[in-house]
Amino acid sequence: MQTIFNHKSIRKYKKQEVSDDILNKILSAATRASNTGNMQMYSIVVTKNEDLRKQLCEAHFNQKMVLDAPLHLTFCADINRFNKWCKLNNAEPSYDNLLWLYNASIDAVLASQNACLEAEYYKLGICYLGTALYSANKIIDILNLPKGVLPVVSVVVGYPDEEPELTDRLPLSGVVHSEKYEDYSDQDIKNIFAEKENLPFTKQLIEENKTENLAQIFTEKRYKKDDNIHFSDQLLKVIKQQGLI
Amino acid sequence: MQTIFNHKSIRKYKKQEVSDDILNKILSAATRASNTGNMQMYSIVVTKNEDLRKQLCEAHFNQKMVLDAPLHLTFCADINRFNKWCKLNNAEPSYDNLLWLYNASIDAVLASQNACLEAEYYKLGICYLGTALYSANKIIDILNLPKGVLPVVSVVVGYPDEEPELTDRLPLSGVVHSEKYEDYSDQDIKNIFAEKENLPFTKQLIEENKTENLAQIFTEKRYKKDDNIHFSDQLLKVIKQQGLI
Repeated sequence: MQTIFNHKSIRKYKKQEVSDDILNKILSAATRASNTGNMQMYSIVVTKNEDLRKQLCEAHFNQKMVLDAPLHLTFCADINRFNKWCKLNNAEPSYDNLLWLYNASIDAVLASQNACLEAEYYKLGICYLGTALYSANKIIDILNLPKGVLPVVSVVVGYPDEEPELTDRLPLSGVVHSEKYEDYSDQDIKNIFAEKENLPFTKQLIEENKTENLAQIFTEKRYKKDDNIHFSDQLLKVIKQQGLI
Repeated sequence: MQTIFNHKSIRKYKKQEVSDDILNKILSAATRASNTGNMQMYSIVVTKNEDLRKQLCEAHFNQKMVLDAPLHLTFCADINRFNKWCKLNNAEPSYDNLLWLYNASIDAVLASQNACLEAEYYKLGICYLGTALYSANKIIDILNLPKGVLPVVSVVVGYPDEEPELTDRLPLSGVVHSEKYEDYSDQDIKNIFAEKENLPFTKQLIEENKTENLAQIFTEKRYKKDDNIHFSDQLLKVIKQQGLI
């Protein structure tokens, strides 16, 4: 459907607010997503307040769009609400383990994608912030997330003030496997990434970053080993601290 | 949009095949989803073969729809392809940690939801199988998933042979928080779950399951402590065995 095929991440936003009617549609759409056992183990925090968005902006590595977009949605894995309900009903919950952290996180992500598509259907722009997991500890503080709750993805929403091109994707044959997984030969990998490597935009990036090739931009500039290890350790600490495993 | 609000999980399917044209649209839609750094750290395994679907059906706790639906999609977190590309390019990948397992899993789930909505747009029915994580070890064997690859969600797809009602959801105010997370009082929890607890369907379930209430159906029948712990331990083992952490 057009809404899906037109998706572009938007990083510049108009000041225009999102109406409560549309916000309500977006949130309702989120809740219609499939979820584990219809237990809805997620929560959505809707932040409009500018001071809070400033704090969130800092947490998200000062990406300016976080401040510019009028609406900030934080999709959290949430076993807190369900646990409370169980305890009120003389039922012993046991969802503080990896399997249920995964289940609740999947629920949160499915809800987020419905919300994003609904927003885009109303001509709003969205951008996922992968940084929610990197800064989970800060977001927990800013949004008062109690034990049992972990921010998984954050999304900014607002009216677009730019019209970017569709971004490239690997050829379908590069990510789809027929019947079983067929592992990649070196030649397969070369073919799959050839188009991406040869984009004018890629060549420009390589020049700017002074690396030999595109892969090194990922490993040496964007997602460096030390950072990966640091933020991964920190994430594990947060997950434990939140009582999720 | 209507497609989102009409979603119902379908558990009975006609024999009718899904055309290659529509399958191609579904897979293309999947790849248009947002993903971490446009690294597309997921793979989609499309299984039609009946013998393989029989094996998958067993892995998914013999849910009959897995055999009945003509199409089985397994959305996997995949760092294998990206790692291979890095190594071919003299770039050292470091994505074998919790943060990137999470990133790759989120990518896989976002892709899956696009695929499901695109399928439903073409009047197909879908059902998520939460059991992918429970039976990850078996699915890995059946689909030949190499190191670096983990099945995160599986979806069956086909033409519906039933027209179920929309399932209930908690009231929006029960899962949405304004500005910050406001933790739930006992009374909040009672209010949020009241409607669900009073559905005729719930009362019937309680009678069939011989429990005091609905919460106990979850904790004592559907998702029992011993099972949660067992499958969680097993999942951790599989994640390590696949070299993902």
